[in-house]
Amino acid sequence: MPNPQLNQHGELQHLLTIEGLPRDVLTHILDTASSFVSISDREVKKVPLMRGKSVFNLFFENSTRTRTTFEIAAKRLSADVINLNIDASSASKGESLLDTIDNLAAMHADMFVVRHAESGAPFLIAQHLIDTRQHHIHVVNAGDGRHAHPTQGLLDMFTIRHYKQDLSRLTVAIVGDVLHSRVARSDIHALKALGVPEVRVIGPRTLVPPSLADLGVQIYTDMAEGLKNVDVIIMLRLQNERMSGTLLPSAQEFFKNYGLTMERLALAKPDAIVMHPGPMNRGVEIDSAVADGSQAVILSQVTYGIAVRMAVMSILAGN
Amino acid sequence: MPNPQLNQHGELQHLLTIEGLPRDVLTHILDTASSFVSISDREVKKVPLMRGKSVFNLFFENSTRTRTTFEIAAKRLSADVINLNIDASSASKGESLLDTIDNLAAMHADMFVVRHAESGAPFLIAQHLIDTRQHHIHVVNAGDGRHAHPTQGLLDMFTIRHYKQDLSRLTVAIVGDVLHSRVARSDIHALKALGVPEVRVIGPRTLVPPSLADLGVQIYTDMAEGLKNVDVIIMLRLQNERMSGTLLPSAQEFFKNYGLTMERLALAKPDAIVMHPGPMNRGVEIDSAVADGSQAVILSQVTYGIAVRMAVMSILAGN
Amino acid sequence: MPNPQLNQHGELQHLLTIEGLPRDVLTHILDTASSFVSISDREVKKVPLMRGKSVFNLFFENSTRTRTTFEIAAKRLSADVINLNIDASSASKGESLLDTIDNLAAMHADMFVVRHAESGAPFLIAQHLIDTRQHHIHVVNAGDGRHAHPTQGLLDMFTIRHYKQDLSRLTVAIVGDVLHSRVARSDIHALKALGVPEVRVIGPRTLVPPSLADLGVQIYTDMAEGLKNVDVIIMLRLQNERMSGTLLPSAQEFFKNYGLTMERLALAKPDAIVMHPGPMNRGVEIDSAVADGSQAVILSQVTYGIAVRMAVMSILAGN
Repeated sequence: MPNPQLNQHGELQHLLTIEGLPRDVLTHILDTASSFVSISDREVKKVPLMRGKSVFNLFFENSTRTRTTFEIAAKRLSADVINLNIDASSASKGESLLDTIDNLAAMHADMFVVRHAESGAPFLIAQHLIDTRQHHIHVVNAGDGRHAHPTQGLLDMFTIRHYKQDLSRLTVAIVGDVLHSRVARSDIHALKALGVPEVRVIGPRTLVPPSLADLGVQIYTDMAEGLKNVDVIIMLRLQNERMSGTLLPSAQEFFKNYGLTMERLALAKPDAIVMHPGPMNRGVEIDSAVADGSQAVILSQVTYGIAVRMAVMSILAGN
Repeated sequence: MPNPQLNQHGELQHLLTIEGLPRDVLTHILDTASSFVSISDREVKKVPLMRGKSVFNLFFENSTRTRTTFEIAAKRLSADVINLNIDASSASKGESLLDTIDNLAAMHADMFVVRHAESGAPFLIAQHLIDTRQHHIHVVNAGDGRHAHPTQGLLDMFTIRHYKQDLSRLTVAIVGDVLHSRVARSDIHALKALGVPEVRVIGPRTLVPPSLADLGVQIYTDMAEGLKNVDVIIMLRLQNERMSGTLLPSAQEFFKNYGLTMERLALAKPDAIVMHPGPMNRGVEIDSAVADGSQAVILSQVTYGIAVRMAVMSILAGN
Repeated sequence: MPNPQLNQHGELQHLLTIEGLPRDVLTHILDTASSFVSISDREVKKVPLMRGKSVFNLFFENSTRTRTTFEIAAKRLSADVINLNIDASSASKGESLLDTIDNLAAMHADMFVVRHAESGAPFLIAQHLIDTRQHHIHVVNAGDGRHAHPTQGLLDMFTIRHYKQDLSRLTVAIVGDVLHSRVARSDIHALKALGVPEVRVIGPRTLVPPSLADLGVQIYTDMAEGLKNVDVIIMLRLQNERMSGTLLPSAQEFFKNYGLTMERLALAKPDAIVMHPGPMNRGVEIDSAVADGSQAVILSQVTYGIAVRMAVMSILAGN
């Protein structure tokens, strides 16, 4: 079965997931992002690459932060941006997802940035556009259910590459609720595709089940053991709804066992970097001393996230 | 009494309703829209006709879809667009509608796109602007109560003209809840003004009362009879709140009697087109086979809707 | 302690409060605003002074009206504007205010327009930006708790200066709930700084306590006495939540004692102007005959408010 996000020339047509994306496509995005990093530093932070293009932020699930990053990225590319919070509108009038898409497509949309609580929604939309031969419209997955969050994965790779250059010798640890995390899933696929030799996942057995080994990662339930000599630590956000659930006794208990403190950070390599997709729960998955410490690159992730989204959008618009 | 939407030279000053608009004004809008259709196909979908103009989308009633069409149209004309959902703001602070308008006018607004649950609200605003001699500010009615939805009427006319060219020999059927539909009202006025000889309305007697005949239409309560030999079928959306009310037994019952199926469509002329203002209730007023069939021009309506709104806005801004 | 809103050269770095701002800084803003008044009258109401700059409207408290004025001002300066209603997003995910700020700063924000229900929030943000040496990012206070609303104070000064020219001989009365009003506080500081010799506050003792005299104002509990021979009357909005509280018997009672009627207005100088920050409660603090009368300059305040905000933003962006 062909990969729906690549066209027949192997070019990126939609960005739905990092899974199955060839290394050279990933590298092309990261290289393009490098050129955009400097634009955000300029006096006039705009390039005309998407002037006159209509980008629709279709957020079926509320996420001001992610929507903002895409909105800024699109505006810095000079696109026209339309924000649609779909909960409050067509969906409530009973219109189907694909009818909504057909309608917006008929308005000559150029790009849909889609956030959806259900895994696979952006695939459904992309497949529908392919089936209806609307090849000029591109879909970017901005997070779908537990499935994927590819631009987060890409910005994480950009950040790691920026600080560590050579990815072929790294050990990376992902800590926390890996089971429910689309960020973790996207990161693991990206790290593997880019040739990172050792990827570890660390967490309680309820959140890091043995089946994760199928993704090619080493599983650790002991934080101290898992952090030993790693180059990169990616902390995951503990979702509020997990904290008092059956999978976890409490936030305090989680912090005691898996919270990243300065003591634990010392187990990693001395130049290890600490990442977090945000928003952080200080005192739950990460101690403030670490979050604000010299090894944290969390705000760099945010900065590079804009450049990566500009890269993805401009590559799609150009293909 | 003079028509408040035309100035003393007979030029369009506000677009409030199609009722009473001279045929040449309607034709001028449709002709202007033709020139905008191609803009949306271009690589750079923007023209500078409204650069530096401030367009306020004043939505006192939520409608993401309609708001989006006006927002895109204004942005493609290079206007600055400000979206105001008035429910959540001044209205709740007890400010009067006209005080809100005076305030926004004082910010040097150029255009108000007004959606309101109460019939006549856009008239009230336009009349106030005339009374206070603010002739540089224009009002577009984006749907007021059960009264009018003139841009929907215009885009329907554009669509019919596109597919049928000569309007002077057509038979057009409007099907469904005509009684409560501002779309139906706007369509009937437009069809009459443009010289369509036969306009039929079809529906149960509770939704298509005999008094509608005053508008110059033929009334049918039998779907099969009403569809016979028509060139154009305009299906109306059945509002959810009607479906279980006293006017209609149920959605299923409505579909049985008035839903547009392939069988019923076959009663119309072989080249008849099927229109719907959206969002569709598939299986209530229209069968999916028809909605997705070759005679449906529903998505063309959406496309032409952008061009028509660009035409209306640019004509108003130029007058 | 240095004033955090001025940099070491005494230039405006943030606009947090009028308190402590030197007269020449205030005058510079008002003079700059004068040059922007004419821009809003032009055919193309845009200047490229902030092209490519990213302005974030951070509204932790809903205020469509104030947000709109800043959004228009920023767009007329050609900035990219991102509206963030923070209630519904990060705040609900438990992220701290300063983590949110750090994140947006990492997206290369240029300006934060901050509205917050808690007094001091914009100070906290500005101080944090100073502490983290992010001197290229500027904060504008768009209203914080009961504390300050400096752009309202400035636009009021602009309006008074426009109508009265010489401020050094004026008597200005501020009427209503001075105790809870950030507008009153900003106005009093501005009037004092600009050399207005006599500032009166008028209201019931519960809303105009004797301690206000510390601000250098004369206190009147009798409306007739307080209005005698004043040049300017600034009516305050009576907040809905006060009307049936313990501080006030009722809205009717308030109007009887402190509502501005034509009869009371006659006690002021014949050429006295009447101001109100909006939205007005007609029949509570102001009679419609006065609000719509020839001495009211309430809509001019709105118009000048856009110019003043353009001035503040462009001055900050240039410093």
